[in-house]
Amino acid sequence: MIVVMNIDATKEQIEDVARRVEGFGLRSQVITGEERSVVAAVGERREEYKQSLETCPGVAQVVPILAPYKIASREVKPERTRIKTGSLSLGNGHLGMIAGPCSVESEEQLLSAARAVKQFGATALRGGAYKPRTSPYSFQGMKEDGLKLLAAARDETGLAIVTEVVTPEDVPLVAQYADVLQIGARNMQNYRLLEVAGETDKVVLLKRGPSATMDELLLAAEYILSAGNPNVILCERGIRTFESHTRFTLPLASVPYLHAKTHLPVVIDPSHGTGHTYLVPSMAAAAVAAGADGLIVEVHPDPSCAMSDGYQSLDFAQFQEMMELCQRVANAVDKSFGAADTAAVNGSANGETVST
Amino acid sequence: MIVVMNIDATKEQIEDVARRVEGFGLRSQVITGEERSVVAAVGERREEYKQSLETCPGVAQVVPILAPYKIASREVKPERTRIKTGSLSLGNGHLGMIAGPCSVESEEQLLSAARAVKQFGATALRGGAYKPRTSPYSFQGMKEDGLKLLAAARDETGLAIVTEVVTPEDVPLVAQYADVLQIGARNMQNYRLLEVAGETDKVVLLKRGPSATMDELLLAAEYILSAGNPNVILCERGIRTFESHTRFTLPLASVPYLHAKTHLPVVIDPSHGTGHTYLVPSMAAAAVAAGADGLIVEVHPDPSCAMSDGYQSLDFAQFQEMMELCQRVANAVDKSFGAADTAAVNGSANGETVST
Amino acid sequence: MIVVMNIDATKEQIEDVARRVEGFGLRSQVITGEERSVVAAVGERREEYKQSLETCPGVAQVVPILAPYKIASREVKPERTRIKTGSLSLGNGHLGMIAGPCSVESEEQLLSAARAVKQFGATALRGGAYKPRTSPYSFQGMKEDGLKLLAAARDETGLAIVTEVVTPEDVPLVAQYADVLQIGARNMQNYRLLEVAGETDKVVLLKRGPSATMDELLLAAEYILSAGNPNVILCERGIRTFESHTRFTLPLASVPYLHAKTHLPVVIDPSHGTGHTYLVPSMAAAAVAAGADGLIVEVHPDPSCAMSDGYQSLDFAQFQEMMELCQRVANAVDKSFGAADTAAVNGSANGETVST
Amino acid sequence: MIVVMNIDATKEQIEDVARRVEGFGLRSQVITGEERSVVAAVGERREEYKQSLETCPGVAQVVPILAPYKIASREVKPERTRIKTGSLSLGNGHLGMIAGPCSVESEEQLLSAARAVKQFGATALRGGAYKPRTSPYSFQGMKEDGLKLLAAARDETGLAIVTEVVTPEDVPLVAQYADVLQIGARNMQNYRLLEVAGETDKVVLLKRGPSATMDELLLAAEYILSAGNPNVILCERGIRTFESHTRFTLPLASVPYLHAKTHLPVVIDPSHGTGHTYLVPSMAAAAVAAGADGLIVEVHPDPSCAMSDGYQSLDFAQFQEMMELCQRVANAVDKSFGAADTAAVNGSANGETVST
Repeated sequence: MIVVMNIDATKEQIEDVARRVEGFGLRSQVITGEERSVVAAVGERREEYKQSLETCPGVAQVVPILAPYKIASREVKPERTRIKTGSLSLGNGHLGMIAGPCSVESEEQLLSAARAVKQFGATALRGGAYKPRTSPYSFQGMKEDGLKLLAAARDETGLAIVTEVVTPEDVPLVAQYADVLQIGARNMQNYRLLEVAGETDKVVLLKRGPSATMDELLLAAEYILSAGNPNVILCERGIRTFESHTRFTLPLASVPYLHAKTHLPVVIDPSHGTGHTYLVPSMAAAAVAAGADGLIVEVHPDPSCAMSDGYQSLDFAQFQEMMELCQRVANAVDKSFGAADTAAVNGSANGETVST
Repeated sequence: MIVVMNIDATKEQIEDVARRVEGFGLRSQVITGEERSVVAAVGERREEYKQSLETCPGVAQVVPILAPYKIASREVKPERTRIKTGSLSLGNGHLGMIAGPCSVESEEQLLSAARAVKQFGATALRGGAYKPRTSPYSFQGMKEDGLKLLAAARDETGLAIVTEVVTPEDVPLVAQYADVLQIGARNMQNYRLLEVAGETDKVVLLKRGPSATMDELLLAAEYILSAGNPNVILCERGIRTFESHTRFTLPLASVPYLHAKTHLPVVIDPSHGTGHTYLVPSMAAAAVAAGADGLIVEVHPDPSCAMSDGYQSLDFAQFQEMMELCQRVANAVDKSFGAADTAAVNGSANGETVST
Repeated sequence: MIVVMNIDATKEQIEDVARRVEGFGLRSQVITGEERSVVAAVGERREEYKQSLETCPGVAQVVPILAPYKIASREVKPERTRIKTGSLSLGNGHLGMIAGPCSVESEEQLLSAARAVKQFGATALRGGAYKPRTSPYSFQGMKEDGLKLLAAARDETGLAIVTEVVTPEDVPLVAQYADVLQIGARNMQNYRLLEVAGETDKVVLLKRGPSATMDELLLAAEYILSAGNPNVILCERGIRTFESHTRFTLPLASVPYLHAKTHLPVVIDPSHGTGHTYLVPSMAAAAVAAGADGLIVEVHPDPSCAMSDGYQSLDFAQFQEMMELCQRVANAVDKSFGAADTAAVNGSANGETVST
Repeated sequence: MIVVMNIDATKEQIEDVARRVEGFGLRSQVITGEERSVVAAVGERREEYKQSLETCPGVAQVVPILAPYKIASREVKPERTRIKTGSLSLGNGHLGMIAGPCSVESEEQLLSAARAVKQFGATALRGGAYKPRTSPYSFQGMKEDGLKLLAAARDETGLAIVTEVVTPEDVPLVAQYADVLQIGARNMQNYRLLEVAGETDKVVLLKRGPSATMDELLLAAEYILSAGNPNVILCERGIRTFESHTRFTLPLASVPYLHAKTHLPVVIDPSHGTGHTYLVPSMAAAAVAAGADGLIVEVHPDPSCAMSDGYQSLDFAQFQEMMELCQRVANAVDKSFGAADTAAVNGSANGETVST
């Protein structure tokens, strides 16, 4: 930590800061500049004393030097994590493709979607049974009936199931049916939910909140990791900016940035990230080119009848075309693509972290 | 709803949209422009069909005409709501002043803060017992022990207690101790929590999420209101923007905007809204001048030793000065100021909505 | 400057950075942390070497310690600047009030506005003769004819004239007529325009660009100041954020922030800052409470017929009411209010900086 | 245009709006809803009357239906524009690659960069001779000496020259040397500069301002187009958001969005769009996958010694690697790549628009 003092900080204030730093068990080093002094605090234990020093008399600013997250960090684990659960495998050079409807609406809707996305190359099925909706008057999901349909779709197609959990008390039930627990953007900082998901042995797909910084996203992952669950997939799904021609702004630079900071795999959601069907295929291809470890895409048998998110869902023909495009781009950037090799995962009923 | 068709939409597509509109039980009216046609859907029931129409072939855009929230709307209840619970009264021309430490840290810390803020004019005490923290390695609050200290502070000072609840299962316990349940910015769209808080008879202070639109904030309030609880206070605490010299950007125009759209009272949090102690008093005064119905401010006996948010907390002398400033500005804008008249509320153990 | 090295930076890389620092004539000091090292560069000359060090092998980050602007800084001139030109006086505890139409449209329109704003307490007249418009198909201003009308309005009312200049070559002509050259938000980083305005003896009102940081605003002011013109008024007129219920988001914390960093006066534009007539009076009052040194407000005889910005203009009755409200708030925060004392400025034909 | 009336608008107010609409020569149609009425204005001439109607008594909102730009619109010219000037050809399926240093610093620096970027596949050379710099104390460019060096580099390598012009009066001089006039992000709304550039016969590369909407970008292009110059290249270079781990946020969805709205080609600047060398190659590849018509990338012989933007510049080896990656991705998305076929353009000394 670097403690920057005010221009007019007194010698006493500088010494007081240095004393506090030593009091924390850190080593202090005062650097006297021509206009300002700074106090370096060496041996810091990440953030713990930053706040206290910020409020000391004479202090202008405290600059942290180390990242605030640990287990998520590449400093701790330099090699990339690869995550496998059922048919889904992603990370460290392998692309996973998660597709399906926004909401589970009926057996027919879900099964037809599951068959189609499987046919065109998806390696997991998404579908919401518990829906967090902006308005209390909107469709809130089929709940456990939806979970049962998802399990049936897995039985038929072999696709791993990705489904959202919105509150801690639902985690045990959802975990009975799902392969991957999705934690949505609105719940990225629902810490109880993160903790409870961290106590399961399920893979967790954690979506970035629309105004979360990268540090906040990685600290949210840290809640899950520090509860004992190493199987975390990060998901960039767009941030809220002044742009109104897209629903959110999708910053693909998150992919190479996160790859530099964390070993966890990063998937992109071009459906929420754009909010318009016609923008999804280009951004899916761009995500693959940017190095994403996977995609999560909304696909519906008939988007114009969808109970949620129809305006950003692909129909089957559009999905097929997108997959062909992504396959070509994946080849161009030397990524493998496709379902997990079942032989390789037969010892793991649940998510398994493979580091290479 | 106004459905804007594409420039090259066919006659069949336009007729199809009109048919769908009629199918929803609405009246359709086609307006043929020189370049584009639009279909007006009359009798709409707020958002319910918007999504479906957005995905119809040939549709460029759907423009909603009515607000998506109902109970929160001034269209439904034109007169301003005034909320009273214990010593706290705010709304419709009366200012409430909520102050206290970010976190409850100890009996001594809390009681000294309670006495001081009461002395200088606060009408409720804030203090967090359950703390949602960005990092899993930060102090997470004193939990039920903190609630007990808050109740003790109320017993001594008479101040109503405002404290945060972070997960649905904690609501019953927190409601045993608190007068006002605070739902923090990170949980503004934690819909289960909103619903459970809506089932209590406690006043709920709902903070705007840092990237929430006004419609999203009012729809979050609608979750509480539609669950049966009319006692909602809205809180603007700043939004996340590109500005980095403040922790968040505090848009005070939220006050007159919300007053135009909703009858619910609006309080401002200049502590989180700026993130720096030295900016708090000016923004508190500005909030009062903008017509806010109250303030919620962080005050700590010794901010440099605070376990959270010290960098934005006022000490007692700063709080006193701020209160004197706010009192003068309140007089200038014809707002009354101060604790609830106890005689007026002696029939109401819990929050009571008074409309005038 | 603090140069933060990568975790895996080699001893050679650290020494190379230290050598470069010394090569710039600065003193280097290496601090060896447990995980990372940092190199402090003492005696820095603001930003000049930052960029070079950022690209050295092994460097993670360079943290500047000093502000990049000089003449604008309170470090250089701690006392607040008060600016006077003709009837306008603002800064250091005195409020100036600039009002008038967005565009000069006709003699009748301008003179009636000038008389009205003068009557209700304005101390300068605004009006655009050169209009930067988003669309090439919109009204572009009356140009020199508009300037002549502004001069006529000054002759009749005695109000100082504030008018925009949009390109360097127009500066001499506009300076013949205007008391204050306004540089609009779109031109905040039109550096040639800043330089040319800096070579005049006119007061310059510099508006913040909608995505400019505070450092960028102060560096834009520095262009004018370093060209020799000390008479700069800063204007906060709102930033672009995700909020769509206001035209821009008006961050009033800019006022106390800028007062801490610079001696230059700060005025607020609640018309552009909100974009809606009904929000202007509340935000004007809030700006005064926040400590602003003045306001600039759009007033039109008949906003529904205005050729630009009618949706955010006040009519005369609304302006009168706003002024009475602002007067009361100014009294509450101990600010004086009103036209310059002509006796005090009779020696200065042009803008004059008064420091107290 | 759709004029949405207030809920409590009177019959007289609605009739007044309808009368005004007819007064503009438009056809009005009143739609009486259950809660609100709207007035449709048919035959509108884009934006011209919107503002006037917005200020009428009883009006809540005016919703434009048509795009405000004309010549830039695909409604006017559905086929994509391809632009060629010298060695640079881009648009309509063909990728142009513009590379070179941020600033022209010396003959040796520029020529070595020109040779290297040509060798690895660039089809135009960028280099700034006039530099708009945030600080008045930073290097401001070599000015005309820089232009001469750029011309010499073209003579040697055959690469077309892209260089920035910052003020209207410099346009004639810069146009003597340049093939493409770059208008930087800070000047996107410098309308005089746009007009003067629109009067030349040079290709204009127009960069999006960091807080400009897509409509504002296209209206800025409209200034150039409506002045008679059809040769406009749009450039997305990132927007300003709350993200601080990248210098700007680069929204690649701008590419498919703009392709839907305009026939003009779209290039991406991954250097400014990320601000960090290590993020540039991934985002360059992603831009190609998203369908961009070209890239503009900063390349420097020794980024650690660059006088500007070194932290986001590639060295020659990095550029070579990036080009190989982009070539593979271009093949995957069926884009051609490379210098203009000189035979095809030998009749055009200057930029020429080719539509297919």
